[in-house]
Order: sequence, then structure tokens, then C-alpha cells
Amino acid sequence: MKELWSPRIRGLEAYVPGEQPKDRRYIKLNTNENPYPPSPKAIEAMREAVSADLRLYPDPECTALLSALSRRYGVPAERIFTGNGSDEVLAMAFAAFFDPAGLPIRFADISYSFYPVYAAFYGLPYEAVPLREDFTVPAEGFCMPNGGVVLANPNAPTAMALPLSEVERIVAANPGSVVIVDEAYVDFGGESALSLLDRYPNLLVVRTTSKSYSLAGLRVGWAMGNEELIAALNTVKNSFNSYTLDRIAIAGAAAAIEDRAYFEACCQKVIATRERSVRELTALGFTCLPSSANFIFAAPQRIGAEELFRRLRAEGVLVRYFKKPRIDGFLRISVGTDEEMDALFAAVRRITGKTGEQGTGNR
Amino acid sequence: MKELWSPRIRGLEAYVPGEQPKDRRYIKLNTNENPYPPSPKAIEAMREAVSADLRLYPDPECTALLSALSRRYGVPAERIFTGNGSDEVLAMAFAAFFDPAGLPIRFADISYSFYPVYAAFYGLPYEAVPLREDFTVPAEGFCMPNGGVVLANPNAPTAMALPLSEVERIVAANPGSVVIVDEAYVDFGGESALSLLDRYPNLLVVRTTSKSYSLAGLRVGWAMGNEELIAALNTVKNSFNSYTLDRIAIAGAAAAIEDRAYFEACCQKVIATRERSVRELTALGFTCLPSSANFIFAAPQRIGAEELFRRLRAEGVLVRYFKKPRIDGFLRISVGTDEEMDALFAAVRRITGKTGEQGTGNR
Repeated sequence: MKELWSPRIRGLEAYVPGEQPKDRRYIKLNTNENPYPPSPKAIEAMREAVSADLRLYPDPECTALLSALSRRYGVPAERIFTGNGSDEVLAMAFAAFFDPAGLPIRFADISYSFYPVYAAFYGLPYEAVPLREDFTVPAEGFCMPNGGVVLANPNAPTAMALPLSEVERIVAANPGSVVIVDEAYVDFGGESALSLLDRYPNLLVVRTTSKSYSLAGLRVGWAMGNEELIAALNTVKNSFNSYTLDRIAIAGAAAAIEDRAYFEACCQKVIATRERSVRELTALGFTCLPSSANFIFAAPQRIGAEELFRRLRAEGVLVRYFKKPRIDGFLRISVGTDEEMDALFAAVRRITGKTGEQGTGNR
Repeated sequence: MKELWSPRIRGLEAYVPGEQPKDRRYIKLNTNENPYPPSPKAIEAMREAVSADLRLYPDPECTALLSALSRRYGVPAERIFTGNGSDEVLAMAFAAFFDPAGLPIRFADISYSFYPVYAAFYGLPYEAVPLREDFTVPAEGFCMPNGGVVLANPNAPTAMALPLSEVERIVAANPGSVVIVDEAYVDFGGESALSLLDRYPNLLVVRTTSKSYSLAGLRVGWAMGNEELIAALNTVKNSFNSYTLDRIAIAGAAAAIEDRAYFEACCQKVIATRERSVRELTALGFTCLPSSANFIFAAPQRIGAEELFRRLRAEGVLVRYFKKPRIDGFLRISVGTDEEMDALFAAVRRITGKTGEQGTGNR
């Protein structure tokens, strides 16, 4: 059946994205989307971009978006690369910086599950560095000779952040290889490595508008790093697809990035609900890892995680479960609105028969 | 300067897209865009998709778009793959079907200049098959053992179409390798290979909404082929970026595909203007290759093509010039509105001092 496939891809196990159900309306806490809509200014900019001009190609350099990012993050436009979601930016970075004939690249054994998929796609050797018993990232595991490093910070699905000093230790230990810090969730409480950019030409910081900017449906991500790294990413992009961002995405993302007040208000709301939710889940008997993200990695005590996952689904609440060693006792629960989280807690109570301590949180 | 680049990409010469000028307003006949706006129904669908739902990931399977394509082209949804423009579809097809350790793949020496770029990116050996003296495609050049075939039909930048019987000859001669027929321009007069799909499991037909659907700014393309080929493309996609099409692009492309009446009216207008433009250009002393596309490949007689390109630019008219053997005497001129073409002819007359025969065309 795979006779006409390139031998390179016959053995690949592709990434499986979180469920986007169409069968009924769920409370959707399974793909770490933002519960709040995008900035009204972004909506307005996108409506304006839906015009006769769509007959024309977009700006392949995404100048308007680069300018907005440059102003917002204080990084020159020449040090920024944009792509079709941070997944595409990462896919291009793996091609740009990692060598199939080189030393293994390194990432944590429990992290974003797309990393080993990219590595397999490009035929890159890799080492999965085990997280410690308490799920913290052992910096020393990334400080030995390697072909490159990929760190999610905060990590997923654990939601735990690595202190900036530890990130710097890893970046400083690897002058000859590129260290990618995937900061998809950093706006919810992590310390960004952006402040290290001027000092380390081997550092690439990757971001997305999917989480903190409420634009998962628009597919815009970006990377910031030394000009040499950005030039490599542009070479890969222009060997693959010159126009990865459409006109509406460029306009919408630029407007969202520029609306800092709205962005900060959304992040604060998500953080407040997260803190309250951790308290509620703890009262319901869950063990929650310390979260710096817009989701909570929580292990139920009186019921198996997989069974709870299934029964929550039947109750109309979607969360994410990974049937993998060390984490198969956990659920990854995205932070929704307060109302959505209350519905989750109520469903857990119905399923486990546990009353919990209600009203512990100050909302 | 490239120390941190993967050795794989250090020697790459990336594709250079046609100029998207920002310095002034040009009559833009350089990137084969459609001069007419997208379908009003597509505009409406996109406006509707600009909503709070953008906080949610898009449907990674693009079901709504697959359904529209399936109905429009009479091909089951399982035989269709969608991507971020046909460039991305082609990039993924090169990864899915061609083997760096296999026989050379084959494409014409004068064709879409992204093909050798993809080949270099994936480290694929290739043979550039010379077009005949008259710029026709020599089918026999694609009928010897190979690792795959890529045919643009109609071809670019020549605009010339290969008869379906010749395409079938090539597809039939290569049961063991995939033949990609890139039909970006087919709606302006070529014969599609779609009718061969049921009989040849090695055929992949690639299309785009950028030209005949007036949506170059939205970035949507697709491929149609046997389920085995579509499964390979999905494996590549899900090893690279699970969500290549955003919510607005899915909605807009589906609505455009469904508005067949608008599509056909636009194609007819472009074809009528092309026919008239060929007559005018011929009267002005150009040699025009027979065009089945929305552009004309035309060689001026009394002035060098490069000089005319530069002087047209100074006059506010952009066309495309390729400084390459055999075609450096030609300009590739996209078919604009009748008014834009009249402005081009007037500029040519000013530059060359040639009066030409005005009013030869029945508009």
C-alpha cells in the first residue's frame, strides 16, 4: 500500500492533534485554547483585510507584522521570522539548524510531542532527556555535546516553568549548537529568554499568537534570534513556500500584537482562573503540578485518569489524556472561563461522588 | 556566518518570488494574479469567519473545504489533500513521493523555477529535461526510468499546454513513480488530467485558488489523487504542521469553489482579454507563444526584453523578466483587465516609438 511513498516517510508516526469534535457541543478544555475572543482591534483589522485585494499575493516578508512585533518586543525586524503557527516555525527551525549527520539533538522525554515527530521527519538523531522525578527539567542533561537543543518553557504537558538562570545555563553551555526555546505558554507566568538574545547568537525564541493572543484559528507564530539564525529560517522558508502567511493573518496578527492592553487583561483573567482552579482541583483530591501556563496538569486520586477522561467526555467536558509512561495518571486541563471550570468541577463531583470544598476561591 | 546553519541548507539557493512593490502604485502584470476580485460569496464567507471562534484551532482536516472540492470536481474527499497554497502542496509532495537515494526525478528545464529549489531542499537528484526548440514539452523525455515526474500544464513561464494524450502517455509510462501534474493555470484553457485519475494510481493533480479563483492573498491549494498518495501527503503534513489552513481560509476557499458561475465568468473575461492582447502584442512586433494560461510569454523584436522590462517599470508597468538561457528574450506578461492591458500597450508604444495597429480587437 505504500509502494509509491518515499522510503523516507514510510516509517513515520505523525503527530495527532487534540480532538476538534464535531458531534456535539463540548466544554472544550483539551487543546489549550484561550477562552476569550481575540482583540476587537484584530477582528476589525481582519474584516478590513477581507477585500478585493485578496486577489493579490500577500507580502512575502510580512513587513507589517514584523514591524508590530519589533515595536512590541523591542527586537529589530531583522531578528524576527514569522510563520504559519509556531508549529511551522519549529518545523523550519529543525531543518535550518539540525544536521542528520551530526550529534543527536536533545529535548525532554516529556514535552511537546511534535519534537520527536519533526526529528523523525528530517532523519535527525535525538536523545530524549528524562525529566526529574518531580517533572522539573534537569539543565545538566542539555549541557553535554549535542547537535541542538529544544526546550519548551513553560513545558507541556507539565505546565512547569524553568527559571531563566537555568535556561541561560543551557544556552551558555552550547555555543556551537542552536538552542530553541519554545515559549508558546510564556505569557501566562514563565520567564522569557528574550532578555538573553543580545548575548547569545545561538538562541532562538519561538512564540505563537495561538494561546495568549486568542488566535489559534489564524495560524501565526514567530521566532526571534540573531540575524544569522533568521537568515537560515528565511532560506528554508523560501525553499518550501514563499507565502506562508495570508493577507488576513498578517493584518490580524499585527493588530492583536499591537493591542497590548487587551492582551494583558486576557492573560490576567486566565491566570486568576488558573489559580482558583488549582485550589478547587486540589480540594477535589487532584495533585496539580505547579502551573505557569494556561493549563493544569493534574492527577486525580480516587479514579484513574483515563477513566475520568472518558467519563468527563460523556458529561460533555473535553480534557486531554496521554497514555504514556510516567504521565498516564494525569489529565491536561486547559484553563477556560470561570463558568467552564465550574462545570468541570461539577462534572468531577458527579463522577467521583466527592463534594470537595466549594467556594474556596476568591474570583 | 553560516556556522550555526545545518550543512544541508548552506548551499541552497532559495526561490525568489515576483516583486510585490511598496514604493508606488504599479499596473501589476508580474505575478499572474487575477485582475478580478474574489467571488462576493467568498468575501461574505470570510467576513463571517472573522469571529470570536478564531480563538479555537481550525479543523485540521479542512472538512468543509474537502466537501466543496469533492462536489465541484466529482472526486471523493478521501482523494483530496489541501494545503497552504499549491507551493506548500508541492513542497509536501516532493517529500512524500521522491527519494533522495533513488533515481533522478524529471521536470522540464524551462518550467516553474520552484521545482529545482524543492529538489535541492530535500537533497533529491534531478534531471532537467530540455523543452524542444519551439518550447513544447517532449513527452519522451519523461518516459525513461526515473524517480518521479513533475509537469506544469499549462507550463510556466511559456504558457503552453501539453495535450491530454501526451500527459497520459507520460503517466502511463511511469507506473512505479509518481507523476505530479501542476495545473495552477489549467482553468484558462488547458486540458486537465483529472479525467485520468481513476485509471492511474500514480497520478497527482495539483491545483490552486490563487489564479482562477482570484485568491492569491489567501494561500489555498490542493491535490487530487489515489488514496495512497493522499495518505502520504497527510503523513508529511502531520509531521510538519497539523493546521496549515486557518479558519478564514477554509471558509473563503470553500465558498469560492462553490460559486461556479462567478468563477467561469472571470475565466472567460481573462481568456477574452488574453486573446485580444496577443493580437495587440503581435501587431506591436512581439512574438507570442501560444497561451493557454492567464499570462503571455512574449518576445519583443525591436528592443531587448531586459531593457523593455526596465523601461516598462519606469513607466509604472510591472511585468516579469527571467535572465536565463533560451528565455532571456521574453517577457512574461500577466493578463490584467482590458484597461490595464491598454496601458501596457500604450507604454510599449511610447518606449519603442511603434504605432502598431490600434483597435484590432473586438472587446
